[in-house]
Amino acid sequence: MTVSVTTNESKVDVLIVGAGPAGLMLATQLSKLKIDTRIVDKMAHPVLRGHADGLQCRTGEVFEALNVHREFDAETHECAEVIIWDPDQNGGIHETSRVVDTVPGMSRVRHVNLGQDRVEAIFIDAMKKANNLEVERLTSPTSFTVDETALDDNDAFPITVTLKKLPPPAEWANGDVKSGMYRSNLFTDESQTASNAVEADHSGEETVHCKYLVGCDGARSWVRKNLGLELKGDSANVYWGAFDAVVDSDLPTTRMKNVIHSKDAGTVLMVPREDGMVRVYTQMGELKPGERVDRAAVTIEKLMEKTQQVLKPYRIDFPYIDWYTCYEIGQRVCDTFSQYKDHILIAGDACHTHSPKAGQGMNVSMMDTFNLGWKLASVLRGQAKRDILHTYQLERQKTAHQLIEFDRKFSALFTGKAKTAERAGVSPEEMRKAWDDSIRFTSGTGVVYEPNMIVGKANPWLAKNITVGSHFENHQVVGAFNAHALQLQGRLLADGRWRIVIFPGDIRNKDNFAALKALGDALGSKSGPAPKYTPKGEDLDSVIQTLTVFATPHREVQYAAPTLPSILQPTKKPHGIKDFDCFMCDEPSYHSGEGKAYAGYGIDPAVGCVVVVRPDQHVSGVFAMDEAKEISDFFDSFMIAPSPKS
Amino acid sequence: MTVSVTTNESKVDVLIVGAGPAGLMLATQLSKLKIDTRIVDKMAHPVLRGHADGLQCRTGEVFEALNVHREFDAETHECAEVIIWDPDQNGGIHETSRVVDTVPGMSRVRHVNLGQDRVEAIFIDAMKKANNLEVERLTSPTSFTVDETALDDNDAFPITVTLKKLPPPAEWANGDVKSGMYRSNLFTDESQTASNAVEADHSGEETVHCKYLVGCDGARSWVRKNLGLELKGDSANVYWGAFDAVVDSDLPTTRMKNVIHSKDAGTVLMVPREDGMVRVYTQMGELKPGERVDRAAVTIEKLMEKTQQVLKPYRIDFPYIDWYTCYEIGQRVCDTFSQYKDHILIAGDACHTHSPKAGQGMNVSMMDTFNLGWKLASVLRGQAKRDILHTYQLERQKTAHQLIEFDRKFSALFTGKAKTAERAGVSPEEMRKAWDDSIRFTSGTGVVYEPNMIVGKANPWLAKNITVGSHFENHQVVGAFNAHALQLQGRLLADGRWRIVIFPGDIRNKDNFAALKALGDALGSKSGPAPKYTPKGEDLDSVIQTLTVFATPHREVQYAAPTLPSILQPTKKPHGIKDFDCFMCDEPSYHSGEGKAYAGYGIDPAVGCVVVVRPDQHVSGVFAMDEAKEISDFFDSFMIAPSPKS
Repeated sequence: MTVSVTTNESKVDVLIVGAGPAGLMLATQLSKLKIDTRIVDKMAHPVLRGHADGLQCRTGEVFEALNVHREFDAETHECAEVIIWDPDQNGGIHETSRVVDTVPGMSRVRHVNLGQDRVEAIFIDAMKKANNLEVERLTSPTSFTVDETALDDNDAFPITVTLKKLPPPAEWANGDVKSGMYRSNLFTDESQTASNAVEADHSGEETVHCKYLVGCDGARSWVRKNLGLELKGDSANVYWGAFDAVVDSDLPTTRMKNVIHSKDAGTVLMVPREDGMVRVYTQMGELKPGERVDRAAVTIEKLMEKTQQVLKPYRIDFPYIDWYTCYEIGQRVCDTFSQYKDHILIAGDACHTHSPKAGQGMNVSMMDTFNLGWKLASVLRGQAKRDILHTYQLERQKTAHQLIEFDRKFSALFTGKAKTAERAGVSPEEMRKAWDDSIRFTSGTGVVYEPNMIVGKANPWLAKNITVGSHFENHQVVGAFNAHALQLQGRLLADGRWRIVIFPGDIRNKDNFAALKALGDALGSKSGPAPKYTPKGEDLDSVIQTLTVFATPHREVQYAAPTLPSILQPTKKPHGIKDFDCFMCDEPSYHSGEGKAYAGYGIDPAVGCVVVVRPDQHVSGVFAMDEAKEISDFFDSFMIAPSPKS
Repeated sequence: MTVSVTTNESKVDVLIVGAGPAGLMLATQLSKLKIDTRIVDKMAHPVLRGHADGLQCRTGEVFEALNVHREFDAETHECAEVIIWDPDQNGGIHETSRVVDTVPGMSRVRHVNLGQDRVEAIFIDAMKKANNLEVERLTSPTSFTVDETALDDNDAFPITVTLKKLPPPAEWANGDVKSGMYRSNLFTDESQTASNAVEADHSGEETVHCKYLVGCDGARSWVRKNLGLELKGDSANVYWGAFDAVVDSDLPTTRMKNVIHSKDAGTVLMVPREDGMVRVYTQMGELKPGERVDRAAVTIEKLMEKTQQVLKPYRIDFPYIDWYTCYEIGQRVCDTFSQYKDHILIAGDACHTHSPKAGQGMNVSMMDTFNLGWKLASVLRGQAKRDILHTYQLERQKTAHQLIEFDRKFSALFTGKAKTAERAGVSPEEMRKAWDDSIRFTSGTGVVYEPNMIVGKANPWLAKNITVGSHFENHQVVGAFNAHALQLQGRLLADGRWRIVIFPGDIRNKDNFAALKALGDALGSKSGPAPKYTPKGEDLDSVIQTLTVFATPHREVQYAAPTLPSILQPTKKPHGIKDFDCFMCDEPSYHSGEGKAYAGYGIDPAVGCVVVVRPDQHVSGVFAMDEAKEISDFFDSFMIAPSPKS
């Protein structure tokens, strides 16, 4: 008799635990960058309805950089205006002000809403299409070990994870998906994780050796807990309900965002959703210190009734309910986002939780892994030193703290009683000011990373409106060879490439021409960053792409192009034709007005400058036109030249 | 022994012969309108490369109305500028002028290019998705009969067509698809059609009884010939070559459209395509009257060589050739587009052919069947009298004649020798003027249908810039309930519905308010068109939709809405909620400037007016605010009320 022993062992570069927005964003980016990746999730299927639904401006910009924006554009719902309602003299409510939801000029992308189910579905399609990557469902880690002697060896797989196939969902006690109960902000059930429940049974296990393990597994993260880390913070001792419903109401503004402060019944936030639905947040009650909300007692009937009380004298009925939940407000963050020399990392709700009303959670979580993805790819490809991975923790933890701080203030304003003639409280002016003050942060466009090995020093006199460490903002330009109105930021695709964006001024001026020529000659020399760091046989723009934005009309650029250094307009495979898309002009377009890019970035066309931009669109540095050496030095500080054989 | 006799007989409302752009546009529209349709094509597969590639502005607007525009937007290539080159003093060429390709303001959609293969593929996807309709390939009609006694019976299937399954393509003599030879404008092989070749064999035949037979089967249309009709016209006795290639050239403008007149080597037209390719048209030679071009003698080498001669002193090489062809210039049109009381119709190249350089053919062909589709649907649904079908012939034949006329002039300018110091000829100014003059026609936005039963009389004083018979042009408006910047034309979807677009002026003015209320009360009464022609149980906007564009800020419209007649904002299934999308405002938007719609349409906000728009966006009539009766009379003239049972 033969005993058949199956050694179920495998290797993978990156193992992602958790297929929510953070995990899927990472998986999609790594798929597009062709990095060997697996993504597992203990749930049998993705979120089906409800949950997060806000997509901030910066998130939309990132979707465009990842080339998934068309799918989103077709489905999202824009909420253009916010109506603020306050108590009137008669015990009812009245409109006290209106503000635009996305402040014009902050981003070319608008703040929109789309259910988390659709967000996840779009990523699941994209990663399948990019590299045939699929979520392995009903799969949970049960243990991991770390070979600490191998952490500095780029070829080693120092993390070993045991994965367990879980039984089908009927046997699960976790009814979250079906009931729609929103877990992220509920403290209960912390201890009862999926893996605890199945730990005793070792059948259906697989041993996976990976270089990097990323925990995107939510507020009750198994990865975080098994690193011995916890979320720290406190509860605001209030609980809210949220539900998605079709609304039948005589409130005139149900298709806008409504912030409704009643005199005594509490606060309601209504956000229009796709397909005529509305997301309603309703303040339900307070808790004593240490008290937990009894979720079973918070029925949809109570949520509807409370909402109706707040809206009086307006009538509101709900012909259809799609989903509902209740949650406690609390803000918590983890001390560290990475362990074992950045071989095990956590992202999203696994390292920060907060209240959902400002629509931040899904966005900040996705931005965590958008920050991480290209760094993992650069290191795994041998293009960058492993040290750059530590900037993930430096950059994103600061952002998480800002988020927690913001949410604490913002939630308090929502929970506080409205000011009336008889009592102190949150005044319309105070609410309005908080809204205005927070808009840049909540849009995601206010995130600035502090100086580190890939965020250099600023030269603010060269580009007054470019913030080093922040994302590269957009201004419209015109394609030099096709006269198309183009969004410059849209050219900075999240394809893993660095970009050197040159603003040479007007090259009809002979000094500007000479400066550009000298810069191009230096960048194109053997020791220039693109020639130095591009593997042999690859296009010269495949690691570092040069884009040039002229303050010269496109016709003149067309005729001058052959006289410029070839690094600025490299030839491309497969036909050896020059790249026609890397020259742009700051001039009026035929159909879309004028972008005024130099003015927008605060660049003097007589002086010009060079902006180095990371693969995630964050600005690494601003250099003078004659600082080719400094630009090379910057890349030399963290990049690795390909071995001569490659 | 049993003899098994298979009676292979079936019925279908509409049988389309030919799955090129005209046939696919019709099939897509009918699929979306859920009309029982079949579409057959004798070829084994769609076009694979080359052929038509221009998509005009109006075509883009129609794609949007059909909700297929996103697919196109993702793939099309916009040519923004046209460079005109003429002979210089040294025997070479020099740039003499630049013009914008899509004149700003003519359409919100730009003239773009996309290969016919992709256009067909997008339609094939759309019709499959809409109603699971697929092209039946290797299927050709072999005969048809008409029951002339049944032509007036709406329930009859008076046309009987025999369809034949063809053997696989290896047995075909027709090498067109493989060689890429462009058939539409070549007169040879007229007599040798697919069906002739297989007529003797009756196996694999099917008898199809249909209400309508539509021949979209190209210049050598089997349907047309079997109706005993022919294309009439003449040849310009010149022949041209065309090819798609990747271009390596020192001409500075290869990514623009280039019209290049050489002194003696002829004319070249270059149009940039997607993926870095360029469509090149090259004038090859003249023919004696009656002479035919020897296609085999026109090799790609000759086309390249001729192109190189014209471009001198610029160098041009072609590292990759995707497709090539040659064609004679000729303009021909059929005497009639419909027979047997409009039960058999022809469309596209089957009724008009011309030269391809102005990028008209695919567009005019698709616009033929876009005109026809909704009419067939209205009649088949019993919503409209059969007579409206005859407007297809009236409207599209006039357009075809205009096209032929335009092409004759335009081709002559291209074929004529360039004027030089020594000789008369086509001057740069003449070429430029012809370009400017033709741009409205070539964009497809210049088509105006003459008065007929569904194109009423104009009241130009009510809306100075709305042309009755032309398409309803676009101006931006703002959604009253969501404050979104909206394209008004984009709201007029090609979903088979008629639209009553009301411009009541500013309803804060009490006369305007009263006029709108009176109009709404009349339109909403039992004898109003929507209540009268909507089947019981359907939403009141399902046959005729009312849209209202206020000259009032959206906030005021939100509060006034409950006081307006309900026909203006009907409730919708399934939840009985009011439609929030049918009220719009002419006001500045937050992010996209101001549409100035009233000014754009030439409507006095103090007076207002009502515009009745057909399902194909063409304007049927402009009425005064107090002409509710005239509006009803218009619909009464051709619509059929649902029987009380339905």
